Amino acid sequence: MITADVIKSLQSSDAVFVSGSTEAIAHKVLPPEQADSESLVFVSKADQLEKALKAQATIIVAHKSLSVPTDTKTTFFTTPNVQLAMSAILPLFDGKMNRFNQETKIHPTACIHPTAHLGQNVSVGPFAVVGEQVRIGDGATIGAHVVIECYAHVGAHTILHPQVFIGAYCELGASCEIHPHTTIGADGFSFAMAKDGTHKKIPQIGKVILGDHVELGANCAVDRAALTETRIGSGTKMDNFCHVAHNVIIGENNVMAAGFKIAGSSTIGSNCMIGGDAAVSDHVNICDKVIIAGRSGVTNDVLQPGAYGGYPLEPLRDSLKTLANLSQLTRIRKEVARVVKHLGLKEE
Amino acid sequence: MITADVIKSLQSSDAVFVSGSTEAIAHKVLPPEQADSESLVFVSKADQLEKALKAQATIIVAHKSLSVPTDTKTTFFTTPNVQLAMSAILPLFDGKMNRFNQETKIHPTACIHPTAHLGQNVSVGPFAVVGEQVRIGDGATIGAHVVIECYAHVGAHTILHPQVFIGAYCELGASCEIHPHTTIGADGFSFAMAKDGTHKKIPQIGKVILGDHVELGANCAVDRAALTETRIGSGTKMDNFCHVAHNVIIGENNVMAAGFKIAGSSTIGSNCMIGGDAAVSDHVNICDKVIIAGRSGVTNDVLQPGAYGGYPLEPLRDSLKTLANLSQLTRIRKEVARVVKHLGLKEE
Amino acid sequence: MITADVIKSLQSSDAVFVSGSTEAIAHKVLPPEQADSESLVFVSKADQLEKALKAQATIIVAHKSLSVPTDTKTTFFTTPNVQLAMSAILPLFDGKMNRFNQETKIHPTACIHPTAHLGQNVSVGPFAVVGEQVRIGDGATIGAHVVIECYAHVGAHTILHPQVFIGAYCELGASCEIHPHTTIGADGFSFAMAKDGTHKKIPQIGKVILGDHVELGANCAVDRAALTETRIGSGTKMDNFCHVAHNVIIGENNVMAAGFKIAGSSTIGSNCMIGGDAAVSDHVNICDKVIIAGRSGVTNDVLQPGAYGGYPLEPLRDSLKTLANLSQLTRIRKEVARVVKHLGLKEE
Repeated sequence: MITADVIKSLQSSDAVFVSGSTEAIAHKVLPPEQADSESLVFVSKADQLEKALKAQATIIVAHKSLSVPTDTKTTFFTTPNVQLAMSAILPLFDGKMNRFNQETKIHPTACIHPTAHLGQNVSVGPFAVVGEQVRIGDGATIGAHVVIECYAHVGAHTILHPQVFIGAYCELGASCEIHPHTTIGADGFSFAMAKDGTHKKIPQIGKVILGDHVELGANCAVDRAALTETRIGSGTKMDNFCHVAHNVIIGENNVMAAGFKIAGSSTIGSNCMIGGDAAVSDHVNICDKVIIAGRSGVTNDVLQPGAYGGYPLEPLRDSLKTLANLSQLTRIRKEVARVVKHLGLKEE
Repeated sequence: MITADVIKSLQSSDAVFVSGSTEAIAHKVLPPEQADSESLVFVSKADQLEKALKAQATIIVAHKSLSVPTDTKTTFFTTPNVQLAMSAILPLFDGKMNRFNQETKIHPTACIHPTAHLGQNVSVGPFAVVGEQVRIGDGATIGAHVVIECYAHVGAHTILHPQVFIGAYCELGASCEIHPHTTIGADGFSFAMAKDGTHKKIPQIGKVILGDHVELGANCAVDRAALTETRIGSGTKMDNFCHVAHNVIIGENNVMAAGFKIAGSSTIGSNCMIGGDAAVSDHVNICDKVIIAGRSGVTNDVLQPGAYGGYPLEPLRDSLKTLANLSQLTRIRKEVARVVKHLGLKEE
Repeated sequence: MITADVIKSLQSSDAVFVSGSTEAIAHKVLPPEQADSESLVFVSKADQLEKALKAQATIIVAHKSLSVPTDTKTTFFTTPNVQLAMSAILPLFDGKMNRFNQETKIHPTACIHPTAHLGQNVSVGPFAVVGEQVRIGDGATIGAHVVIECYAHVGAHTILHPQVFIGAYCELGASCEIHPHTTIGADGFSFAMAKDGTHKKIPQIGKVILGDHVELGANCAVDRAALTETRIGSGTKMDNFCHVAHNVIIGENNVMAAGFKIAGSSTIGSNCMIGGDAAVSDHVNICDKVIIAGRSGVTNDVLQPGAYGGYPLEPLRDSLKTLANLSQLTRIRKEVARVVKHLGLKEE
């Protein structure tokens, strides 16, 4: 239950008060096509605005290009960027923090090693395990059943959702968010083949380091380095089921969709966007500002910013043509056979 | 240890008693090639029947098209559908429920919020966490280390295997089964890009709703909607490692094999079958009764029932030809070069 | 903190003492390019040796082909195989076992059924659940939040990292290592379709059997068999996110990279290497000593040892040509159109 006044008091340049009562109350947020009179609605287009008005939505946050009517009871905000407006306003409706506090800040069932150091205002859920010499920054939220092994660090205001695993010595920055069943700091995959064909494990004694504002989806895995560090830079976001192998170095502000995989010792710069199920081979380097389409396979260095796609990787425009021509392949084969026959060429 | 009499008393049209002693006892169920005299055996084909008879299996459940011998000690049932017979009889041999009851119905170590409501005959395993205002239906089974966040609902007779995560406000229907390490209700993946290239999180304040008889394999992830609901309809079954992004709507009685992924806001009708590692892009709609081959990539709407495959998606028959012709691609390239040379055409 | 003397006392043929003080102390292990005077460094090539010497590394383990200088304070070992040397020496620097012992061998919060049998020197972490009649071999390490269901066996010296799931009746051999969030023994995916289009579950009453020295990465899933056994043979290693369906039989000393998937009832021999994201269809048989490239799709039996790749699968050499020619597909289509036009052939 949020009043327009609270939104106005955010003083966000992404949600500017325009008209209507600041005492308007929104009980929920709904998409335009499901709007009702108790809802706040974000609208990007004229038809969405029409739907929201028809439903008598109590508060509308409209893209600034839309003409806001003056003859309604609705309270209006405008924004230069609807997504940024959502990013600014939706936290008011988000009960996420309530999920973590069953009864108390530090749940009595949590198993916290006496040498662990917890900052101010840290929340620890039921059955969480916090190991020897672990350090947790101020305001961090540790979900139920999280395991943080010895000597790991968790930065201030970071959220670890239930059942996350943080391996020994790994370091997470501030304001990260890690979703359930994600594994940070399992062993890298590394074996030496002996003469008898068996594989001898090479212990993985390095760690994982995440910068600040890193988000990892559910059921991801980031392996610890063989000797040194696997790194994911500040502001990088990964969706569910992403796999980051040992010794990988990833820069800042990248976005990786679900199922992204990167093999050992590869590097990615900053400000890249990588589509779902794309994979990067080992020891490959990708520079800054690269866009890679979903399902692509990157087996060689990408040294120029730009958009790419396909397996093998091509400039995006070429990869889309290749993809389209794939559906022509049967016809092409027949045409070639016809030509060869027409010319009376012998089969080779 | 099950007697033929118990099977007979199921009065299932998928397992009809034919001949032999109803006191025959089966200690286990084995495939025909491993049958022994203590085993119940399902047989679809004549050679399987022969093997089971040779092994003197105590009970044989045979497809009705097979001729059942009368000169044996074996007890016989027949069935119009061996798989449905397995579905009817195997629960008698399945000790699944024993797995959940270490000592008591509600394990003393479980952490159940005083405001949670548990129905009749609910089982809760060690260290399970059941949050504020959670509602659990009659006869539900909550495994060890399951986390159910506040305000979530779990329907009657639903089984949550150990270590499952159910996020706040999510709703599961009756008779669902969710396997270990599956995450229901993690945040959808959604960020607004700010001018400085950083990505601002858009809070995900919606939920996940599963119908009745939904089964999700191990290590799956179904994300909560941005504002409203991510839905999986009754009777839909997914194998391990399936990913369902925010705002996806999936209908009833679908079957998805391992590694299926579907991106945000896409929809799937009912009675579809989708193969392993197939992926559906965002905002794509697939109608009822569609079959999609493994590894396919669906990037456009599929509006006609039928079988499809490939990436890009084609009717299945065409996609199989495309696939077969891929192995011809090197030969085709050479043929084309030969023709161009033969004709004295200039290279372009 | 390890002295050269301790390494020498390993008496490993993969790390032979050559020269320098046996009292040299290494505080850490670093790659050549990050070496410092407190580090042990493994070097394979002349330029790495140079870097390590320049950094005055305290101990260098060099490939035997390199000329080891005699005019330095550095202590030298040589090896015929640097990876095997790492496998032999790095355990001395690996604090893995410390991760598991918060305070005591058997953590007081662990929930161990009175009928479970634990061998000598077993370690059990906080909140681990060990079910009825479970048997755990000598020296095994059970991490925090592990769930081992009733009647399962865990072999001697096996390590289960935190949050692993071992289903009822499953059997793990000796010296296995299973990483966090891996699921062993969830149900196979099996349904019988009823006439009304609903899918009836076929109970999965078999189990999973792992041999000795099996390693599974984080977030893997190995399903229990329908009636009998899903098997992974001794010495086989799988990276993160691998999926093994019910009734699969995998032999010994195989290596599977991340995201490998194998569908029901397929078999793999021994000493195979399979790349990342490769998939094997159901009921396919792969013989010994097969190498399969990453992303391959195996839909037919592979009956000859050798290297293969692609989808459809081809001999590796052919698959690389096919892959390369994919980028030529647009050009090929245009050439064919030009030829057809040049010859005045009618379109078909």
